[in-house]
Amino acid sequence: MMLNRGKARAYANIALIKYWGKRDDQLVLPMNSSLSLTLDSLYTETEVVFDEKVDRDYFYLDGKIQDMESTNRVNRFLDLFRDAAGINRFAIIRSINYVPTGAGLASSASGFAALAAAANVASGLNLDHRELSIYARQGSGSATRSIYGGFVEWKKGTNEEDSYAVPIDDGKWDIGMVIVIVNSRKKNISSREGMKQTLLTSPFYNNWVESAEEDLKRIKIAIENRDIKLIGKIAEANSFKMHATMLGADPPLLYWEPETIRVMEIVYELREEGTPCYFTMDAGPNVKILCRLSDAQRIRRRLEQGFKSKHIIVAGSGPGITVL
Amino acid sequence: MMLNRGKARAYANIALIKYWGKRDDQLVLPMNSSLSLTLDSLYTETEVVFDEKVDRDYFYLDGKIQDMESTNRVNRFLDLFRDAAGINRFAIIRSINYVPTGAGLASSASGFAALAAAANVASGLNLDHRELSIYARQGSGSATRSIYGGFVEWKKGTNEEDSYAVPIDDGKWDIGMVIVIVNSRKKNISSREGMKQTLLTSPFYNNWVESAEEDLKRIKIAIENRDIKLIGKIAEANSFKMHATMLGADPPLLYWEPETIRVMEIVYELREEGTPCYFTMDAGPNVKILCRLSDAQRIRRRLEQGFKSKHIIVAGSGPGITVL
Repeated sequence: MMLNRGKARAYANIALIKYWGKRDDQLVLPMNSSLSLTLDSLYTETEVVFDEKVDRDYFYLDGKIQDMESTNRVNRFLDLFRDAAGINRFAIIRSINYVPTGAGLASSASGFAALAAAANVASGLNLDHRELSIYARQGSGSATRSIYGGFVEWKKGTNEEDSYAVPIDDGKWDIGMVIVIVNSRKKNISSREGMKQTLLTSPFYNNWVESAEEDLKRIKIAIENRDIKLIGKIAEANSFKMHATMLGADPPLLYWEPETIRVMEIVYELREEGTPCYFTMDAGPNVKILCRLSDAQRIRRRLEQGFKSKHIIVAGSGPGITVL
Repeated sequence: MMLNRGKARAYANIALIKYWGKRDDQLVLPMNSSLSLTLDSLYTETEVVFDEKVDRDYFYLDGKIQDMESTNRVNRFLDLFRDAAGINRFAIIRSINYVPTGAGLASSASGFAALAAAANVASGLNLDHRELSIYARQGSGSATRSIYGGFVEWKKGTNEEDSYAVPIDDGKWDIGMVIVIVNSRKKNISSREGMKQTLLTSPFYNNWVESAEEDLKRIKIAIENRDIKLIGKIAEANSFKMHATMLGADPPLLYWEPETIRVMEIVYELREEGTPCYFTMDAGPNVKILCRLSDAQRIRRRLEQGFKSKHIIVAGSGPGITVL
């Protein structure tokens, strides 16, 4: 057997055109294509060791052994690599998360992307980035996009083989995000469950999907033109439409807290004063503000004045997976 | 000429199945039927005098002479009565509003219903309630419903003659509302403009209309059964769907403030503790909580603890128009 150890880092990504709902639960095939920005200051580092001395997978997150539910999810994911590489050993997985877990900051994106990249090395499969994004996808949809840096599209594809990530723009220009952690508690409802509920019950769901595909076309042109105002406007509207679709579910899904709205108000104020900045929210109360990286610290200070948040994170555009 | 003076009172109503968009702007024909509860503690009193000594209409609201925009709207409305009754005098209109104006508390509903009822007397037309609701509709859509007390349906109809209000239930049972005035400033965007923008640009609009018609059927059965939990559940979801449709507009329409969400959170808490109460929001940040009238004062006190609002109004089910 080849190498049995691999370690990698993957960065979080924030969707500007959202993914919310699967057409195939098992294969994680999304209802619509999505697009995100990979960030530099939120990431996960993961080591995978296929070890003949263990009788099951052991998954440590931030130094703590994880329960069977989490471990089983990792186990099923590593089976993809074991099956492909013909490995019949269990693994020890050690993961350090530099993203608050379960707070809508997409820790599963960096988590499964790092796990995929580490398992890729440990298994000796040596998949290329495209193939790796197909693997990552089966761990968690948003992980598909964290394989690459900068602006990344996840093509919904037509089948399990062509639903993968494509780099759109390396993000090496004056672009960044200010992330306001309104609440870092774990969510009441998982994204997985929330998506299902929305897809099955919201009268707006089909129009959401159509509208997201339109937004995607438009934002790709705006990214090509590095038109931050248009990128932001499309992203902000797309986020509202996703939350609108959730509010239409039965029972309704409301992820916002009072402070979520307060942050939106400050963003509106900043914009009226001439600073281009635009918010986007995922399945949680936190707010991510897209802006020029050169404006980010000033926006952060302004938020600290108007708002008593414990955590405001400034991030630039980040790279793709890195083998350590 | 007959009588030339009329005075009447009309009460506000809060829609449980919302009206948001017209299929005919001129005739105020709505896209969907709606349903409301008329309240007893929010109302408008209006006197109309057709006076040969004045050379134009004079409109006083709360003792203050109004600008030409407001006066013209009243003028055009009174023309309906003048034309029908063959009156060629202008009018002096004195209106006292016991509803905060423009704060999403539907002051135009009680306003135009009271004006219609007063003009009905002053003109000597003696229209019945159904006809009067057709007239009131042309002043302001929601005024259609304030002609009657209790639970009232506004049938969208097929033409200008059959789009009117119908009383559904007199509301003389243990039902009421707690109204939390989050902000009583005038709105940035009028309902008229907001509706148009939503109808023309929101990808969710058609599904909103379909969904509201379904909700209406279900809530009428729930009202017949006096099933407050089901009435509330349907109303709360319907309000979310209207706001979702607005959030889908281009540009998005967000009417909520941080305190709007705070009130929703308290309502969720109260419900978990066993008190049946359900919120509904209109085109503004204020929250109206449907509950048993016998629970209303307790809910009010709870809100006063968790929330620093200047104004919390308790209201029971109110009557229809009253000639004074």
